[in-house]
Amino acid sequence: MRLYSMPSSGNSYKVRLLLSLLGRDCEIIDVEDSSDALAKAKAEGRLPFGKAPVLELDDGRLLPESNAILTWLGEGTAFVPADGFTRAEMLGWMFWEQNQHEGVIAVRAALLFYPQRRHLATPERLAELLERGHALLQIMEDRLTKRDWLVGDAASLADICLYGYTHSAGTRGGFDMTRFPAINAWLDRVAALPGHKGLYG
Amino acid sequence: MRLYSMPSSGNSYKVRLLLSLLGRDCEIIDVEDSSDALAKAKAEGRLPFGKAPVLELDDGRLLPESNAILTWLGEGTAFVPADGFTRAEMLGWMFWEQNQHEGVIAVRAALLFYPQRRHLATPERLAELLERGHALLQIMEDRLTKRDWLVGDAASLADICLYGYTHSAGTRGGFDMTRFPAINAWLDRVAALPGHKGLYG
Repeated sequence: MRLYSMPSSGNSYKVRLLLSLLGRDCEIIDVEDSSDALAKAKAEGRLPFGKAPVLELDDGRLLPESNAILTWLGEGTAFVPADGFTRAEMLGWMFWEQNQHEGVIAVRAALLFYPQRRHLATPERLAELLERGHALLQIMEDRLTKRDWLVGDAASLADICLYGYTHSAGTRGGFDMTRFPAINAWLDRVAALPGHKGLYG
Repeated sequence: MRLYSMPSSGNSYKVRLLLSLLGRDCEIIDVEDSSDALAKAKAEGRLPFGKAPVLELDDGRLLPESNAILTWLGEGTAFVPADGFTRAEMLGWMFWEQNQHEGVIAVRAALLFYPQRRHLATPERLAELLERGHALLQIMEDRLTKRDWLVGDAASLADICLYGYTHSAGTRGGFDMTRFPAINAWLDRVAALPGHKGLYG
């Protein structure tokens, strides 16, 4: 099993984090943003949607999309709730992450982090993303004020998924995390899971 | 079972389409964009992420996110592949739809369709979305040139999901669908499924 993984990306980090929590071995191929390795993996047809992460099985089958990889690796583990409705709720948070959260929280962080994107970081765009990001984080805050984990009563793929970009929303994205005490307590709970590792850990 | 559904929206249509294909009864509450009914559903706490569609179970539990609703309704039916890897591939296309396809194909259509958004439809934005949309549709075209359905060998939730906004990409979004013969043949296959209904059907 081999993971094409962008070291600096939250989407790739989610998968590395789950692998670590599950104690599973996996060859990691680093394909950093704008790198020759990324261009090579694309040219060799290893990235079906043109992006990392992609999981390559030993028989050569390719699975793109970070959250789909989480469901494949998580199947049958404690990170996928047994109850069908709770599983659907878990996927709901994961679709929301890809449709709303990632397009604002991760995008603002990327504009500030990657030198090659900085020309797109106009003050108007940064301000708009800041306001929208705080509103999205408030949805998580409201949820986590009432419960320890996003769905069910234990850590699930939804928590691992949302942790990917939320854990660096303050340091990298410039969001004001002092507004979100319930999110901060939840970040600490995820960080305390046995086998947790950091973005570059 | 009750669906809060936006009549003009592809995300809500996906769910109505699956209900029809499965022959399942469901009360439909219309919450059109900018309507009083939408504001009422929000104010009453029926839309956890502030958007339609949301499925409300008979016991009051709420499930947001169109694609999560598809997984809940589809569980145990022929639209969810039995093989685990094929199921993960199906979810991969559905995450891609929410992260890439919907944010370009549906957004361009919305800018042209909803009078209240037309002030955002600058020529530069429309041109950029047109170019990105054609590139995304080419990914579907390449896939469907080699196979009848997006994953496995039968219609799955991935096809229903992607049909939601692709079927009106030409008429509503202004994309040049003559470039994509394999997509057009696939659209015809979905439309021929027993129980198919149109956006307003």
